[in-house]
Amino acid sequence: MSSGPPAIHEIMEARKTISGRIHRTPVFTSSGINRVIGAELFFKCENLQKTGSFKIRGASNAVFSHGKVPGFATHSSGNHAAALTLAASWRGASAHIVMPESSPGFKKKAVRGYGAEIYFCHPTLRAREEKLKEVVNRTGAVFIHPYDDPLVIAGQGTAALEFLEDVEGIDSIIVPVGGGGLLSGTALTVKAMNPHIQVIAAEPAGADDAFRSFNSGDLIPSENPDTIADGLLTSLSELTFGIIREKVSDIVTVSEDSIKAGMRMIWERMKLVVEPSAAVPLGALIEKRDSIPGKRIGVILSGGNVDLEHLPF
Amino acid sequence: MSSGPPAIHEIMEARKTISGRIHRTPVFTSSGINRVIGAELFFKCENLQKTGSFKIRGASNAVFSHGKVPGFATHSSGNHAAALTLAASWRGASAHIVMPESSPGFKKKAVRGYGAEIYFCHPTLRAREEKLKEVVNRTGAVFIHPYDDPLVIAGQGTAALEFLEDVEGIDSIIVPVGGGGLLSGTALTVKAMNPHIQVIAAEPAGADDAFRSFNSGDLIPSENPDTIADGLLTSLSELTFGIIREKVSDIVTVSEDSIKAGMRMIWERMKLVVEPSAAVPLGALIEKRDSIPGKRIGVILSGGNVDLEHLPF
Repeated sequence: MSSGPPAIHEIMEARKTISGRIHRTPVFTSSGINRVIGAELFFKCENLQKTGSFKIRGASNAVFSHGKVPGFATHSSGNHAAALTLAASWRGASAHIVMPESSPGFKKKAVRGYGAEIYFCHPTLRAREEKLKEVVNRTGAVFIHPYDDPLVIAGQGTAALEFLEDVEGIDSIIVPVGGGGLLSGTALTVKAMNPHIQVIAAEPAGADDAFRSFNSGDLIPSENPDTIADGLLTSLSELTFGIIREKVSDIVTVSEDSIKAGMRMIWERMKLVVEPSAAVPLGALIEKRDSIPGKRIGVILSGGNVDLEHLPF
Repeated sequence: MSSGPPAIHEIMEARKTISGRIHRTPVFTSSGINRVIGAELFFKCENLQKTGSFKIRGASNAVFSHGKVPGFATHSSGNHAAALTLAASWRGASAHIVMPESSPGFKKKAVRGYGAEIYFCHPTLRAREEKLKEVVNRTGAVFIHPYDDPLVIAGQGTAALEFLEDVEGIDSIIVPVGGGGLLSGTALTVKAMNPHIQVIAAEPAGADDAFRSFNSGDLIPSENPDTIADGLLTSLSELTFGIIREKVSDIVTVSEDSIKAGMRMIWERMKLVVEPSAAVPLGALIEKRDSIPGKRIGVILSGGNVDLEHLPF
């Protein structure tokens, strides 16, 4: 695979690579939520995916696309770390995870639960990169970036492939954006399969680097992001930004109150545990329904890993 | 239909009556929970059912089995009230719900949300029955009991019909018991379809009237029950007790701590919102795995209606 955006045949290849290992997640609807929003919404439940998020798609595609290696490594305090650890274990390989000491306890516990070797570092970009380099040099592990990697993006795109097969006549698909892996994969898939469907991104207003980058045309890094949506704190990469500029119709920002309202609506009405990041698209629909085109709207519920002891309600 | 236990053909008839109106709920598994329990568990997700519980099965079967009537009535502060109200609305009939003033706010809100006419009474059996009689006399509404009704029991039995079709080779099915509607319907269905499968009931130790009735052979009413499982406070009726004595293999009791542990396990590992009552069977499996026979065990997750502002974690 090249280092540029994955082609649609590479996304289809990814699907063959990972199918049988991951869940084909269900699509649920809620007549109650449809009434509130005034549209027909279809929720692709990646919170019910293995490791509780879509990240296992990209991680397992990357892991199974490499030859025999001593292990895999990444820096992440969250869902990509858990996903890479599980995918590595399927190959009998070790996983080396660099995470900030300041990561919440329930995330450390989850990653450790999958059997990762964890390396703590100071919560700065520089400390994280230095520690990762040291770990990779010492162990020979292959670094799998959470999103700046065509194999990872191709894997994330497989959720949209399933979505388009399972729901007919979708007008638009809305997904959350952090580093842009899910958004890039979704946009590449959707635009290749049916260019009439619009791909929209929803981003917390408190971490709106993708929104500002998209509108200015320059990649603006995330600085001091402040949002409950802890999976969306990262910046776009050149690779994901390039795909997003070309394929995504719009990026909308969402207030913290609307993210919480969306999260609560999904918990109460759909009986699904979703993490705040996964509720950002519904938050956007609650807030600015008119900015999001379509009578039939697909929403990817990106994950369900949340600290039950610190809920926002 | 007679006033005795419904026959299997009546349960199959119920399924025809309600299909298309209710969800065929999915069955989920969790490799993480299987590892903890040391068995293969299959969870029938009635928390994802319309109105958030299995109660819509019995309520809609009863409602659609009656001729044209001015309305329907019941006394319930919980899931049966919401279910009866929705089922009545499908027929364009009104729903009259008698509930104690002391019912939690989120339940009042839910029942009102479905469009019920609510009548508050003092929280005693006598006040409830008097108020119900008055409402029925004045409105001509038909009283649908939450469980002491063959049509309701037949409706609840349809969950097990689907379960047996969707999962092969189950050794036992475990369900929570309160008034015994779900348990009776499940037991009648399972024993008619495959008598080798054992039906087990799980009951909170703090509301163990069914356990004591089952073991003594006499119907012992529920007195001052005290449990977080607020759907399981009611007593068996002569009808449900008779079915349970004949068809159920065992009733096991579960501590409050195990109910909470089961609930948390389902939320964390399966990303499903379930109410405490729905977690009682998994609580039983956590606590006394050895009392529950089988390598492949079916669990009915009975509902997901919970007050998000008062969670036990």
